[in-house]
Amino acid sequence: MSEQKLPTRSEDYSEWYNQVVLRAELADYAPVRGCMIVRPYGWALWENITAALDRRFKATGHVNAAFPLLIPRSFIEKEKSHVAGFSPELAVVTHGGGEELEEPLVIRPTSETIIGHAYAKWIQSYRDLPVLINVWNSVVRWELRTKLFLRTLEFYWQEGHTAHATLEEAEAETSQMLDIYADFAVRDAAVPVIPGRKSASERFAGADQTFSIEAMMGDGKALQSGTSHNLGQNFAKAFDIRYLDRNGVLQHCWTTSWGLSTRFVGAIIMVHGDDQGLILPPRLAPFQLVIVPIFKNDEEKAAVLDNAQKVRAELVDAGLRVKMDDREGLSPGFKFNDWEMRGVPLRLELGPKDVAKGSVVLARRDRPGREGKSFVPQVGIAAAVAGKLEEIQKSLFDRALEFRRANTVEPADYEEFKKAVEKGFALSWWCGSGTCEEEIKEETKATMRCIPIDQPGGSGHCVYCGQPAKEKGIFARAY
Amino acid sequence: MSEQKLPTRSEDYSEWYNQVVLRAELADYAPVRGCMIVRPYGWALWENITAALDRRFKATGHVNAAFPLLIPRSFIEKEKSHVAGFSPELAVVTHGGGEELEEPLVIRPTSETIIGHAYAKWIQSYRDLPVLINVWNSVVRWELRTKLFLRTLEFYWQEGHTAHATLEEAEAETSQMLDIYADFAVRDAAVPVIPGRKSASERFAGADQTFSIEAMMGDGKALQSGTSHNLGQNFAKAFDIRYLDRNGVLQHCWTTSWGLSTRFVGAIIMVHGDDQGLILPPRLAPFQLVIVPIFKNDEEKAAVLDNAQKVRAELVDAGLRVKMDDREGLSPGFKFNDWEMRGVPLRLELGPKDVAKGSVVLARRDRPGREGKSFVPQVGIAAAVAGKLEEIQKSLFDRALEFRRANTVEPADYEEFKKAVEKGFALSWWCGSGTCEEEIKEETKATMRCIPIDQPGGSGHCVYCGQPAKEKGIFARAY
Repeated sequence: MSEQKLPTRSEDYSEWYNQVVLRAELADYAPVRGCMIVRPYGWALWENITAALDRRFKATGHVNAAFPLLIPRSFIEKEKSHVAGFSPELAVVTHGGGEELEEPLVIRPTSETIIGHAYAKWIQSYRDLPVLINVWNSVVRWELRTKLFLRTLEFYWQEGHTAHATLEEAEAETSQMLDIYADFAVRDAAVPVIPGRKSASERFAGADQTFSIEAMMGDGKALQSGTSHNLGQNFAKAFDIRYLDRNGVLQHCWTTSWGLSTRFVGAIIMVHGDDQGLILPPRLAPFQLVIVPIFKNDEEKAAVLDNAQKVRAELVDAGLRVKMDDREGLSPGFKFNDWEMRGVPLRLELGPKDVAKGSVVLARRDRPGREGKSFVPQVGIAAAVAGKLEEIQKSLFDRALEFRRANTVEPADYEEFKKAVEKGFALSWWCGSGTCEEEIKEETKATMRCIPIDQPGGSGHCVYCGQPAKEKGIFARAY
Repeated sequence: MSEQKLPTRSEDYSEWYNQVVLRAELADYAPVRGCMIVRPYGWALWENITAALDRRFKATGHVNAAFPLLIPRSFIEKEKSHVAGFSPELAVVTHGGGEELEEPLVIRPTSETIIGHAYAKWIQSYRDLPVLINVWNSVVRWELRTKLFLRTLEFYWQEGHTAHATLEEAEAETSQMLDIYADFAVRDAAVPVIPGRKSASERFAGADQTFSIEAMMGDGKALQSGTSHNLGQNFAKAFDIRYLDRNGVLQHCWTTSWGLSTRFVGAIIMVHGDDQGLILPPRLAPFQLVIVPIFKNDEEKAAVLDNAQKVRAELVDAGLRVKMDDREGLSPGFKFNDWEMRGVPLRLELGPKDVAKGSVVLARRDRPGREGKSFVPQVGIAAAVAGKLEEIQKSLFDRALEFRRANTVEPADYEEFKKAVEKGFALSWWCGSGTCEEEIKEETKATMRCIPIDQPGGSGHCVYCGQPAKEKGIFARAY
């Protein structure tokens, strides 16, 4: 950990973010511009995210598979909007095994095309449907402006790809996966999100409808944190994915895709972090609790470490993720700062007096200073720690929700709208016109994040043009 | 599943293998030559393999991370033997985002170079050592002759990369990981393996020593099933990975790498499979048991399915992986064949008579016909099934070990040697000369698979040149 002070969020939010990622050892820059090394601590966080999602995918009947990294360039060109959206971002392999390839290959920017090709082969009859496949992999998109986790040339994600017999089933799937993302964000990441529908201009290249969950970051900007697409029959037609229905008639399938990426790590950092560094939600934290033993001499050391090991064993047996920081030659104060930077939700301090009294000190990461400290008996320690972790999980969510409420405005007019999007979200009546959306963007840098599924009802007038409007949308500046 | 009969192993072993992979729906060919789609059933098997290994890696202090797919081509050129070994196999990215790149990038064929670059940055002092990182990813090597799972352009694996302060620690790590691979192969995959040292000609490009586990396939050929490399200071010197020791002296690190890939799926297929298809070891099988309900009319159907669901619930509660095959319109016979092809270790048949008697029929996949069938009461079914699965696991291992014993010869002379390698392994005294090794290969197509760690002791005469020899080696034709 560097000795220099972390910039505060109000001083320089962007630099605060970069420094937290590097100092907490979540990730590092790679030798290739825009690529990222995910370090062990960051990858352990991502593994916990993947486990929380994978459990939900499997519980709803999805299975995992793997599709190749390399896609013939001609595949990308088969779906009109898809090629328009993705061709500027492709990484192209022109040589293999020392020879120039007859047809260049692209590294997948997403896998609709190659999976569509496989589904066309595998699906024959209504009996083969639905196909509910998810993939955990990485994809490459040649981004110009990059930032660790938020936008990198290569990023890690899951991409779900399903095929159905009817539009209704595809709609239900798109909606179910959006709900799963929201449930994960709220319950596991303690990140409040707004599930909603994207405007036409923000749709996935090749989708009929795109839905997303949108979260407010600590600087009031929005982050699209997961998307679910109803692809209609666009890819089914481009790749000839057809099935014989119960009446023996050949029909095109209806397909969906949905993804959540390492971008979500950025959401966790920016929603919960403070000026001391990262704060991780207990359900996803690689270490839920760190034990810092405190002693002054060898005699104290032996007694303290012995006691600390017993406490550790009891917590580990209870299924908690525990780190023992018994590094030599570092002061307790240094260790406190180090684990605060890394966002471990609870710190357990144990010194000679605690050994004598059979107690420990618990310090909450989310409440610095005396307020977050408590003295807890060692008897029943596992239950006490589990209880504290639940409290922290809830408290992080409540705080983030309160922050979003405080920074969300329902503007009465465009003047209020402009002020609102300077510091947070504007929830505004919108007529649905792309022209209004485009002009708002040019004038305020705020984009239509989504039209929340949860609508107030009634109707009003577009905040920009004043025409009748049936729906309210979230407008915000976004990452 | 296709209606055509599977070729037997003795008719055409290679075609038997290809058909099993396709019909069991483990994998499929991809549109790009030599690439592979791993289908959900194959991926579930690989996920169980990864879990079994990952548990062992973490228990020995390793952590996971992720490094980029794209490596500057100049990196590959920094270690002399490495570039010689890998440059003919590289996939090269020359264009990104619509522009030609200043320096071409390669898709990682393995990650020693990019990880070496990162370690040079992260490692400063002896306090930072050892670094024990593992990565789960895919790599690309431009192979000319490919075969599903055994050799594909892109394959999935784990690659471990560690850095140590001393040669002794690096040696201990190399050896520990070889032991872990052998333990996994034997205990989880029921695949007997011979851990040993590779000859100089078979070493990893850039290693001082390579160790491997070698398994005998059903046709007597060898498959290298996992490797562990002691890289000495070769990569540390090429990438300047150095640390300040306790005396303040700057030293180069000692590094290792080790990997096991989707190739291992090929080993499982070829070690255990029979002329009816796949046979999966219970500890790794995606489904350990399949329930096939049997009925003739709606009344029977209701009673049978109701009872089957209860049995299923009891087995699932006991932590078993169970598939209920309640597909409509397919005969029990068709389902039996289907799950035999897919290698599910146990089949549970349940008909109206079984409902009446409160029993079920269990049929072992590894013992076709009456011999493998038993009638088991539904009371205590979970324990009975768990017991059978353990029996099958042990029986598969014993059978494979017996097959290897029966097809391994310790030849008295070169004539016996030549006969031995036509049908299996020759365990022979070898003088250690690369010339003998090369000539044996030219004359018999058999290569030096490994010098087993477990040596008989004593000494003898090289099976080829007759010179004194201190060690016995395994020679065999290999995949």
